[in-house]
Amino acid sequence: MLKETLEQGQHMIDQALEKLLPAAEQRPESIHQAMRHSVFAGGKRLRPVLCLEAARMIAGRLPQGIEELGSALEMLHTYSLIHDDLPALDNDELRRGKPTCHVVFGEAIAILAGDALQTQAYEVLARLQCPAEARVRIIEEIAHGTGTVDGMIGGQVKDLEAERQPPDAATLEYIHRSKTGALITASLVSGGVYAGGSHAEIQRLRDFGRSVGLAFQIADDVLDVTQSSEQLGKTAGKDAASEKATYPALFGLEESLSKADALVTSGCNALESFGPRSQTLKDLAHYLVQRTK
Amino acid sequence: MLKETLEQGQHMIDQALEKLLPAAEQRPESIHQAMRHSVFAGGKRLRPVLCLEAARMIAGRLPQGIEELGSALEMLHTYSLIHDDLPALDNDELRRGKPTCHVVFGEAIAILAGDALQTQAYEVLARLQCPAEARVRIIEEIAHGTGTVDGMIGGQVKDLEAERQPPDAATLEYIHRSKTGALITASLVSGGVYAGGSHAEIQRLRDFGRSVGLAFQIADDVLDVTQSSEQLGKTAGKDAASEKATYPALFGLEESLSKADALVTSGCNALESFGPRSQTLKDLAHYLVQRTK
Repeated sequence: MLKETLEQGQHMIDQALEKLLPAAEQRPESIHQAMRHSVFAGGKRLRPVLCLEAARMIAGRLPQGIEELGSALEMLHTYSLIHDDLPALDNDELRRGKPTCHVVFGEAIAILAGDALQTQAYEVLARLQCPAEARVRIIEEIAHGTGTVDGMIGGQVKDLEAERQPPDAATLEYIHRSKTGALITASLVSGGVYAGGSHAEIQRLRDFGRSVGLAFQIADDVLDVTQSSEQLGKTAGKDAASEKATYPALFGLEESLSKADALVTSGCNALESFGPRSQTLKDLAHYLVQRTK
Repeated sequence: MLKETLEQGQHMIDQALEKLLPAAEQRPESIHQAMRHSVFAGGKRLRPVLCLEAARMIAGRLPQGIEELGSALEMLHTYSLIHDDLPALDNDELRRGKPTCHVVFGEAIAILAGDALQTQAYEVLARLQCPAEARVRIIEEIAHGTGTVDGMIGGQVKDLEAERQPPDAATLEYIHRSKTGALITASLVSGGVYAGGSHAEIQRLRDFGRSVGLAFQIADDVLDVTQSSEQLGKTAGKDAASEKATYPALFGLEESLSKADALVTSGCNALESFGPRSQTLKDLAHYLVQRTK
């Protein structure tokens, strides 16, 4: 059931991305090829699927055009991966089992391809098939969630700084909440706004996202310790090699996993009032942590 | 008179940028200091001033909050400068007379500061004080103008490719129209939309922008040949040094200047039906080319 939800969501998003990204033959070709290389490198489309299922929970069905919002979220996630992988940042040559963008296209095009995916995301968001009032709320939510203050870029900056000076537990939580959690939360919230959710409904989605987003990143830390590069599709053990602070390093494996479990439980509690309609999001939350076992 | 318009516009924009950018003390400090370093390095605020004056021409006065739109345009322009200056791209160490972002803050933070200025721009645009319908039109216009197809990033990609293979006149015109002209046009058009301009009025602003944007970049090519680094505040003669194709290289100095003059005339003609209200924009157009003389 969950497997089907994931596969159907991934398929919808892949089709929408195919339509919304400029064709590989569109000039200038190099940048469009680079954007497509990274977008179609086999991502799980997790943020779009969370967005779709949040919208389905609120509206009772998938609202028309929601896959365009999901695609914009995936463009933003991919832009952040391309830039994170650059030599000046994490210097990763492998991502989702394929050579990273700068390895294939060179650093200049990789920088511009990341820039362009961010730009393209906002063009798609401005054209969404929901009322203009909802579109600007969605854009504000997503821009804030990917920004410097409590958002994705802020988390990335603190993460870079943590390589020089190991962070304490509070700083590590800030890094995880902002670097990964904020876009996951924005994905859920924007799906809810697209579906016309009430203020109270959006708040519950936000609470769910805050818990589950942190649990997801803790699980990612655990995977980096317990899995091989082949299983991960990216270079494993990088966190330990760069002495980056992680949950397992600070708390040990077992306590990290139990923290993640507790966060998933608390996230699911936030959805209680939605009744059975919240089952898919709850299943997704458990899946995010169970993939580590 | 024109000098006053420029100074007043610059002052309004600088004040708005001061308010809209996260404080330098806001954590994580490094990214906010880097963003502010480049934004407050002494730019002419040309795109915002064009936006303000387009709005003033349409509405008969400066609409409330227009400086927020102008600030978002300047954030986008600055993001593109920070990334263009990176070692992997133009590798420039001097910009607006100051050391470039990566020289002061390192490449990683410079990449993220560029990213963050783009993100921050869309957060500002989503919150503008005009109706939501106008905000999404403005966001779409600006995202397209800074995108890969006919926009800023597309021009930058072709410009990079032109270093390996000198372009013909048509390609050079594409580079200039998209790399510089498209954001200048989007600045004028978005100012017109903010002010509630009619479809026909917006079209005239677009025609003006297309001509003046190209004239501006031709003038920039000329300046690179005729001025010193000290006068420019950035490394002069870089185009010739990198064998980059420019208007003076393809057509000579005199014909380049006469092309720029003809474009300004044609741009000003597009504003004829606005009567005396279009005088400031026309003066600005002439100023863009005259600064080379």
